[in-house]
Amino acid sequence: MREVAIIGIGQTKVGEHWEKSLRQLAAEAIRVAMHDAGIERADALYVGNALSGEIAHQEHLGALVADFAGLKGIEAVKVEAGGASGAAALRVGYLAVASGLNDVVVVCGVGKMTDRIEAMRTAALALTLDGDYEAAHGLSLAAVWALIMRRYMHEYGVKHEDFAPFTMNAHSNAMGNPYAMFRRPISAEAFARAPMIADPIGLLDMAPLADGAAAVVLCPARQGREFTDKAVEIVASAAATDAVALHDREDPLFLRAAHLSAQRAYQLAGVKAEEIDIFELHDESTIAAALSLEACGFAERGQGVRLAQEGKIALNGRIPISTMGGLKARGNPVGATGLYQVVEVVQQLRGEAGVNQVKGARLGMAQSLGGSGATAITHILAA
Amino acid sequence: MREVAIIGIGQTKVGEHWEKSLRQLAAEAIRVAMHDAGIERADALYVGNALSGEIAHQEHLGALVADFAGLKGIEAVKVEAGGASGAAALRVGYLAVASGLNDVVVVCGVGKMTDRIEAMRTAALALTLDGDYEAAHGLSLAAVWALIMRRYMHEYGVKHEDFAPFTMNAHSNAMGNPYAMFRRPISAEAFARAPMIADPIGLLDMAPLADGAAAVVLCPARQGREFTDKAVEIVASAAATDAVALHDREDPLFLRAAHLSAQRAYQLAGVKAEEIDIFELHDESTIAAALSLEACGFAERGQGVRLAQEGKIALNGRIPISTMGGLKARGNPVGATGLYQVVEVVQQLRGEAGVNQVKGARLGMAQSLGGSGATAITHILAA
Repeated sequence: MREVAIIGIGQTKVGEHWEKSLRQLAAEAIRVAMHDAGIERADALYVGNALSGEIAHQEHLGALVADFAGLKGIEAVKVEAGGASGAAALRVGYLAVASGLNDVVVVCGVGKMTDRIEAMRTAALALTLDGDYEAAHGLSLAAVWALIMRRYMHEYGVKHEDFAPFTMNAHSNAMGNPYAMFRRPISAEAFARAPMIADPIGLLDMAPLADGAAAVVLCPARQGREFTDKAVEIVASAAATDAVALHDREDPLFLRAAHLSAQRAYQLAGVKAEEIDIFELHDESTIAAALSLEACGFAERGQGVRLAQEGKIALNGRIPISTMGGLKARGNPVGATGLYQVVEVVQQLRGEAGVNQVKGARLGMAQSLGGSGATAITHILAA
Repeated sequence: MREVAIIGIGQTKVGEHWEKSLRQLAAEAIRVAMHDAGIERADALYVGNALSGEIAHQEHLGALVADFAGLKGIEAVKVEAGGASGAAALRVGYLAVASGLNDVVVVCGVGKMTDRIEAMRTAALALTLDGDYEAAHGLSLAAVWALIMRRYMHEYGVKHEDFAPFTMNAHSNAMGNPYAMFRRPISAEAFARAPMIADPIGLLDMAPLADGAAAVVLCPARQGREFTDKAVEIVASAAATDAVALHDREDPLFLRAAHLSAQRAYQLAGVKAEEIDIFELHDESTIAAALSLEACGFAERGQGVRLAQEGKIALNGRIPISTMGGLKARGNPVGATGLYQVVEVVQQLRGEAGVNQVKGARLGMAQSLGGSGATAITHILAA
């Protein structure tokens, strides 16, 4: 097995890109990443995407994006795992380079979620839940997070307002990220006043669906140091699953897949949770952020919210999360999100995060969730 | 890089499985494959599927199938590349084992295409074409093959009836395959009389959309010989792409991706086309079969049809194709097809193809196409 490095990153601004097609967004991110890496060709392209068939009326994105990005002819496929699709594509790209079968690999995540009316977006997103036993009965993704959050509040004696720090931290950090969708602060009052989506989940608990694309270029670590002095090594890549339907899980308040993939990642990297300097977690909802911190060993069960309240998730805190705005404020272009998270970790490890730079960040972790946590894919990167 | 072997195969009957869900079909094929391999656990599951969101209202199949197949917790994602999705999933499974990162991997292809009315199936399938420049203007997949076929007939002075041997060969072979959808012979007269779908493509030129699942179990080749004496080695895995839209291709009569991926596969395996004993090609349409034979070096340009007319594609011919019925008569459960092709090659190489056994088959090739040939993924297996 070969060690694998990220030698280039690219991203488009996250937002409502009505004037740009799926392939245009993807090609833009790829062009930036390849330029950043200083390469002009690649052996393979892995595209992370979810729901392009339903929302953008286009499947078969591998060949489509390869052609439009000027890479016609190379190996190219799409990888899907709900909200973890981008991370899943990175995992496949990692396997391709680690195996020795491909040397220079481009991984792109692309999502175009805003071209349909809200109800259709919600319906499409529900396809990442259990179709027969959740979606068919009217559950949306926000509704599943709401069920989990209500139980969490009951179980641990937590109030809805206690989750505000997650949203406030994300929005505060997005102000320093030129690619973020919502670059304005959110007050605790605004959080409390936000319209209800699915009780107790309010509008400011959930990450906004958005359009965008992000990409990385991978190559063998040994070669990476020849290409660039900015190479960041992938020291762990791990994936795990859980039941897709909430009612099939052993414990609805424990993200088992997140736990399993983080544990495997720590083992592969030979590190402990305490050694991680920044953690780009899947803050699709505030409750998801709290549960991710708990599942990955940064807080005891029921204490994830406290971590946020105590300021430990801030840029200068013990474990900075959503350092460039997270899903909540950078925006959530579903299939692209996993790559945005990784690109942001690379920015931090390269010392290129601008005013959001976490000082001395050396070891960063990115974790993406699919559905309500049925898939979890974790990568640990080292400067 | 580690050599990779297939140590187990499984498949469901292909047909209209209205009484079985997507996850049930997948789990059935996986159960058979794992039993065949004599294993009870796996490290990862890669699911090949196309269009489950549109047809079966379910995405996020990795975690869903893993759970239902009794593999909850393991790494699992879906891989999509239109009609080549099954082969694309096998390619990812191959990378995972070759890399040394996973030891025992299950790859499953599943397709459930008949739960919607015909018009919706056709519309869904068109999502594997170029959405903006083909599908949006009313082109269906059959219509694109029809454009190609009409041009082929014009260019090479071939008549529609000349394509009949492809369909007759496939149906003749399906009679010996208990898993096939259409186990009855087709006469040249029936072929000629078949209703027109998209001139010159008739009903008996196109493979029928169907439901079904097929699976294989992979492990390192060295270990494979410990598990079973039926192990078949994957001596080459290669993928390539072309423009998705027909009008963007250099030559509409040349399947460039099929050519590239076959050439890479020959190179990786260190063999020539002449050494291949059987070829499970992507006979989604009769014209696709002819062009695949040409692209992969079994016939000169414009001579693919002659090969069929001269009986060289029969079980006792120079290069047997569709040996268990092919897409045409075994049926085409789109996302599962790539795995069916590979399972059938394994049956032949193990000498388990019953009355369809190609004598002395030692080297078999399977090639799957996505869209109208924009993706091509080729595997060469050795007994």
